[in-house]
This record gives sequence, structure tokens and C-alpha cells, in this order.
Amino acid sequence: MAVKPRVPSGMRDFTAREVRQREWVIGRIRSVFERFGFEPIETPSLELLETLKGKLGEEGEQLLFKVLRRGTALEQLRLGRVPAVTVTDYDEVVDCALLYDLTVPFSRFLAMHPELPLPFKRYQIQPVWRADRPQRGRYREFYQCDIDTAGTPSMLADAEVIAVVMEVLLDLGFSEFQTRIGHRKILDGLVEAAGGGGHFRAISVAIDKLDKIGLQGVCEEMEKSGVPGEVAGKILQTIGLEGGEDDLLAVLERMLAGTRLGPAGVSETRELFTFLRALGAPAGRYRLDLSLARGLDYYTGPVHESIVTRPAIGSLTGGGRYDGLIGRFTGNEVPATGTSLGLERIIDVMKEFHMLPESGSATLVLVTIFDPSTMEAALQLASELRRAGIATEVPLKPAKGLKPQIAYASGKGIPLLAILGPDEIASGTVTLRAGPGNQKRVARQDAVAEIRAFDAGRTTLDEPME
Amino acid sequence: MAVKPRVPSGMRDFTAREVRQREWVIGRIRSVFERFGFEPIETPSLELLETLKGKLGEEGEQLLFKVLRRGTALEQLRLGRVPAVTVTDYDEVVDCALLYDLTVPFSRFLAMHPELPLPFKRYQIQPVWRADRPQRGRYREFYQCDIDTAGTPSMLADAEVIAVVMEVLLDLGFSEFQTRIGHRKILDGLVEAAGGGGHFRAISVAIDKLDKIGLQGVCEEMEKSGVPGEVAGKILQTIGLEGGEDDLLAVLERMLAGTRLGPAGVSETRELFTFLRALGAPAGRYRLDLSLARGLDYYTGPVHESIVTRPAIGSLTGGGRYDGLIGRFTGNEVPATGTSLGLERIIDVMKEFHMLPESGSATLVLVTIFDPSTMEAALQLASELRRAGIATEVPLKPAKGLKPQIAYASGKGIPLLAILGPDEIASGTVTLRAGPGNQKRVARQDAVAEIRAFDAGRTTLDEPME
Repeated sequence: MAVKPRVPSGMRDFTAREVRQREWVIGRIRSVFERFGFEPIETPSLELLETLKGKLGEEGEQLLFKVLRRGTALEQLRLGRVPAVTVTDYDEVVDCALLYDLTVPFSRFLAMHPELPLPFKRYQIQPVWRADRPQRGRYREFYQCDIDTAGTPSMLADAEVIAVVMEVLLDLGFSEFQTRIGHRKILDGLVEAAGGGGHFRAISVAIDKLDKIGLQGVCEEMEKSGVPGEVAGKILQTIGLEGGEDDLLAVLERMLAGTRLGPAGVSETRELFTFLRALGAPAGRYRLDLSLARGLDYYTGPVHESIVTRPAIGSLTGGGRYDGLIGRFTGNEVPATGTSLGLERIIDVMKEFHMLPESGSATLVLVTIFDPSTMEAALQLASELRRAGIATEVPLKPAKGLKPQIAYASGKGIPLLAILGPDEIASGTVTLRAGPGNQKRVARQDAVAEIRAFDAGRTTLDEPME
Repeated sequence: MAVKPRVPSGMRDFTAREVRQREWVIGRIRSVFERFGFEPIETPSLELLETLKGKLGEEGEQLLFKVLRRGTALEQLRLGRVPAVTVTDYDEVVDCALLYDLTVPFSRFLAMHPELPLPFKRYQIQPVWRADRPQRGRYREFYQCDIDTAGTPSMLADAEVIAVVMEVLLDLGFSEFQTRIGHRKILDGLVEAAGGGGHFRAISVAIDKLDKIGLQGVCEEMEKSGVPGEVAGKILQTIGLEGGEDDLLAVLERMLAGTRLGPAGVSETRELFTFLRALGAPAGRYRLDLSLARGLDYYTGPVHESIVTRPAIGSLTGGGRYDGLIGRFTGNEVPATGTSLGLERIIDVMKEFHMLPESGSATLVLVTIFDPSTMEAALQLASELRRAGIATEVPLKPAKGLKPQIAYASGKGIPLLAILGPDEIASGTVTLRAGPGNQKRVARQDAVAEIRAFDAGRTTLDEPME
């Protein structure tokens, strides 16, 4: 009996057209990454559970796709050799999980490659997996595109990462977006100045939800976590401060003078904006936003995200500085900063708004087969074209007449037919045909050159129908 | 405490240099695939167990990396909420597995996409996973490069697949190899003619091991499976027949005249070789080999593998026709034929024999920073070069003097330094430096053009040291 075929929930097949579109987007992103000097690395699709443990939070650990260890008693159950298996030690049956993100693997990679000269700038474009509830635009297998620079505390590294993000968005054709830039140390200073010291984690988690639950919601969430209402109010007031970054930083400098981290946050942010200007980052497309917190625990410096405003589709990228994470593998602190681009969201949006180029078949020519007697000549021509680098097909299904062959070519989007009938063979010619009334008979030995000229758009095939 | 970082057994990190080499090889393979009109598809990294069941044999099923279903009682054990969990139904805790190969996913894909015009020619280049015992050259995560044509019984499709394989090997620089071509129906006829009917499966599994265990070993294995010694001897004699394919096929035609499948095998093989010649397949590099069986159960027609003889490294590709597999999903038979290239083995060998191009950094220029006062000018130059498409870095670590910057560039293989000191800034120039004594001061506005000319190899920087 036939099995009704399905793919796992939240996962997708990609047809040739989709693969080409994905590769086009990835190619453009990669090319911006390389212009800024980031180099590609790849890491395995699986990491040991011991590597992931304690890095993702319980929510993240729940979403991991966990992989069974080989040769456990569960295997005996699969084979029907035992009726039941009792498991008392989870780690005995499970040892790996599919990647949740690319930041933890990068940190692990760096710790295992002490020979790499620092600062080390890498990009990584790979699938990750999360056992999230699938919904429109949220997949269980999806690509991330990450850049990270490890080994320097310089704000220039952060400025570069932000400049790359903006360059990618512009390059892909998103002209209206805002890159919001915050700083964890400024936020820490604001919390301290408002009297909320000791509640930093709860406060930043609450602020991170501002876009979703609004001021009132954030305020309630803070109070629920034990932050006094008065403190919550003060914090919400100050993170709402707006203005040009020079003005804002001057105000913050005075406000946070006595706090533990605030002054460093202010001077780093000032440096960051100076570097962004020198790097020619597009004015008006990035701004200081004190309300940007970012949920992840490990951020320690500037944080940022980019929101496309037209089409109004929300956040496409997010990142920040995380000076402590790599040290959890190496033992000694390695400062690092980076960002992640959500490829699937970018592609979904570009598809919806017709921002992707249409690509037909990669095949340029179908050499038709008139009847069995012309087959050998057709195969020889196909082979010659292929050798000249021209993507060529021949019909693989025995068919009568040209019609089904024309239908196959047009169904696949193959733009050119090379017709080699008995007449053409006898006279040493080939008829090239791009459509009804758009064809031309050329000498057999000129076929490669004529096809190349057609492909380059230099000629049409405007010989009148015979 | 720091976790000692490790990757899962049998899996690997790839550095930038390795990623570039892999991409170079994949790019060449892909380009041959496309010249022959194969189109890319991608499928998820996971398949449902119900999709894989019964396709891989017990040996294959044992090697699957199986993935835990979400939300089972095992999750309670992980969280320490229960001391033990008893599992009685394997399918209740496991529902997916990582891909074992790309043939089963392709068959499942095709069954789910009835809208695709047939014949359908696809290529697929993706990692697969096998929980095999890791050893030199055998990995638990590795890429396969597959092409398959579905929807036609024509031997032309088989000839194309074999022609692609040979073209790929030649294109990658393997000049001495042999593509062995057998046919399951001829083998079936030989077995029947020798009186071994009913033992076909055991016999073909035994013959498949000929290279490893020799004639004696194959003979013993056949006898162990119940094949009479006399029959085994006859079979081994006939599969050892050698000669030009025309002669061999003429002999086989007479030998197998009365058998069930033999005559079809002979005429299909004859067609196949005619097509290979017409396609211009390289003479002397492929031959009919009656002893080629291929282990997999699902082959139904021509089978083939390519063995590189210099360097003497054995089989790099294998494939064949499998007319029944897709029908196990669709219910109606869809004939198909294809092959798989072992990418990791190809890359390992090319590395060992220095067949891979050396690639340095993708970065072309490091713009040096003299001191904080020149930083802004350096960042502006870097930004201008990047906009011109030139991959450019600036030092991210505050450093004193040029030396550490030169060291960083040479460590990373960046060929060109753009030096922008106070002199250069004052005079509107930049010094381009490719090495000691190999430098040139150029006008600031000519920097992009000069760098492009250097990169294209059109100029050296032969200005004498000042």
C-alpha cells in the first residue's frame, strides 16, 4: 500500500524556482558580508547537549530537536525485542540536539580554534531548528545568516556590524527602515538611577515586550516582578526620551553620572555613533533608542534591531555585544559582537512584495529530436553545446512531432529550441527558434556563437517564417 | 566552570579556507549538472519515520539519527519532575529522523508534487547523516550530490546520468578513471541461466562484495545462502566475461535468449552504449562489467559506479535505475534513474593530491589606521572601497604603529595595504603596499581604479621605496 507522503510539521520542500530565489538572496547577503571582511565558517548541524546546556534558557531548551543516542535500550524496543523500556537517566538516551542558533556554535568553534588570529570576523549561513508551534512565517527548520566579530572590545566592531545590516537591507531593496540602537549599560544606568537596581533582568525582559504589550503592559509586568510602581514609572519615562543622539547623550551623561555602568554606556554609544558616521552609514536610517532592551540574557553592550517600515513588516534583524558568552567555553573572556538576519522572513517579505527577480529554467536550449534517425545528430549537437558551457537538454520521452517538445520547453521555461530535422542535417544547418515567427536557420558550425549572441540579448531571431 | 568544548563524534567544523574549497568543488559539480539541464531542489533535513520505513533495510534503519517527538514524558524526566519513564511504544517518543540519503526524499518530493512536468530532472546537494562508526574518511554528517531523472524509461536518461558523472570527474581534474556499467536484468538472466533462480537477491548481495572479498569469498557467501556450488561457479564464470561491449552483448544475447529478463537487459544495454557514444562520452573510460551488482535492493536496470585509478582511490560515485521506488509513495509506477556523488571522499582525495586551488582571504585591502586622528579618514576610505565592491577591512584592535597591522594582514592573507598617514591625508594621496619594496603612492581619487588594476594583475606596485 502506498504511504501518503508528508513532510514533518513546520518544514518545507523547495522547488527549483524557490531554490534559485533563495540562492539569489543568500548570494547578495554573502557578498555584503565579504565586502566588510567577514569570512565563512560552517559547523555541524548537531551540537552535544553539554555544549548547549545553560545557554538558551529553559524556553530555548524546550524547543531543541533532541537526537537519540545510538544503541540504547530504546533500539531494542524499536526492534520489538522487548515490550517496554524504563528510562531513569535522560542523558543516557539523548546526547545531541539540532542547532538552535548560530551564536552558541560560533562560541564553541572559537574556543576549539585558539590558533585563529583575533579579532576574528566570521559569517555563517546555515539552517537551525526549533520545535516551535508552526504558523504563517514561522518554520521549524529555517536559515539564519549571522556575522560576528570576536576578540575586540572596540565599538568599531559594533559599528561595522550595524553598517553591514543596513547595507544588506539597502542592497536587497528595502529602502525604508529604521535601525534602533540601544545600550545595555545605559539601560542598566537608567534602572539604577530610577532606584530599580537589583531588578535589572526582570525590567529588561519587560521592556523588550514594549512593542507587543505597550507601556501599560510593561508597567504591569514590572510591578508583577516586584518593581515599585514609582520606579517603573520613572524608567518608562526616561526610556521614552527622544531626540538627536548628541543631545540625548549629553542629557544621559548628566543623568547617569553617579551610576555603576551608565557613564561607560554613554561614552561607548558616543563612539559608536561617531564610527557609524565615519563609515558612511545612511543618515536618518538609524537612531539611538533607549527603549531597546533585547530579551537575551547574554548581551552586555550595544544592542540593535532593524525594522522595515515600508512595507511595514517589523523586525528583520537583531543583535548586540555579548562579552561573556565565549568565556564560558574558554575560561578567559573573549569580547564579541554580532547580529543575525532572519533569512526566511526576508524571503517571505520579498516574495510577497515582488522584490525577487523572476528566474526561469537554467537550461537555455532544448535540442529537439525529429525521429529516431535524427537522434544521434541531436545528441552530438547537445553534447557540443554543453561542452561550450551552454545548458542544454534533449527530450527524454519518445514523442511524435515537435508539439510535445515545444510544450515541454515552454512548461519548463527553456527559451530556445534547436531544431535538427532531416533538412537541417542534409544542409549542415540548425534552426534556432525562440517562439512562433521568431526563428532563424544558421550554419551548424555557427550554432554555438549564434546561441551565445541570442543569450546575451545581442540578436533576435527575426528571420521570417519559411 | 568552563565546559571543555567538543563536536559530536564523526562531525566537523570547517574553517574559512575549507568552506571556500568545498564551495569551489560544489560549484563545479553544480555547473556540470546545470549544463545537462538538471534543476536544484531542496528538501527538509528531517523526514518522518513513516516515510523512511522499509526503504533502507534494517542496516540503514539502525544508522538513522532519530529525533525525539516534542512533549513526551521524556521531557518530564529531563526536567527532573519524574524519577523514571516507561516507554512501551517507540513511535510515541520518536517521529522523525535525519536524512539517510537523498533518493528517498526525492521520491517523496515527487509524489507530493504531481504538478511537475515529467520527465523531471533534479539535482540536490545536501548533508545526510548516518550513525556509522566514525573512521578516517567516514563521517556522520556528510554531503551528497545527487542527480535523478524521473518519469521516463528511456535509456537516454541513464546515458545522461553516466555522461554527467564522467564529465564531473574530468572537470574536477580526475583524468584516469573507469566507469563500470552493469545491468540488473542481465545479472538476473545470468543467474537464471546458471540455475540459480530464486536466489537472485542473495547472489547479487554476494557479488556486490567481489572487490572486497574476492572470488573465493563470494563463492562461499553464495553457498552459505543455499546456492549450490555448481551454480555459484557458473555464475562467477559468466560475470567474469570480458571484451568489447558489442562482442559481449552478442554473446549474452545468445546465452540469455530463454531467460525471463535477460533479453530486455541486453537490448537496453545496447541502447545505453549507443547513446553514450552519441553523447560523446570519453572513449576508454567506461565499459560493460557484468560483475557489477550494486547492493541496494531497489535497482531494476542499469547500475554503474566510477572508480578513480590514478590516484588509486576507489569508487567515488554510484547509481542506477530504480523503477519501483517512487511508486511506493504514489501508488502508480514512476520509472527513475540517478546517481550519487560522494562529495566528502572527492574533497578528501583532492586535498590529499593537491588538486584544490589555494584561496587566501576574500579580503583584498586592509586600510591601516595610523593613530586616532586618522581614523575617520581611514573609515571613509574603507567605506568608499566597499561601495566600489572591493572587500576591505580596517584594524579593529587599537594598535601602535604599522607592524601589528601588517602582521594581521599577512596572517589572514590580505594582499594589499592602503596606508593613510598624516602625510597622505595632507597631500590627498594613499600609499598602496603589497609587500616590502612593493608599494606606490597614488592620488586619493585614483585609489579604487589602482586597486582594481592591481587585483586584475594588470599592474605591480613598483615604485621604489622612499
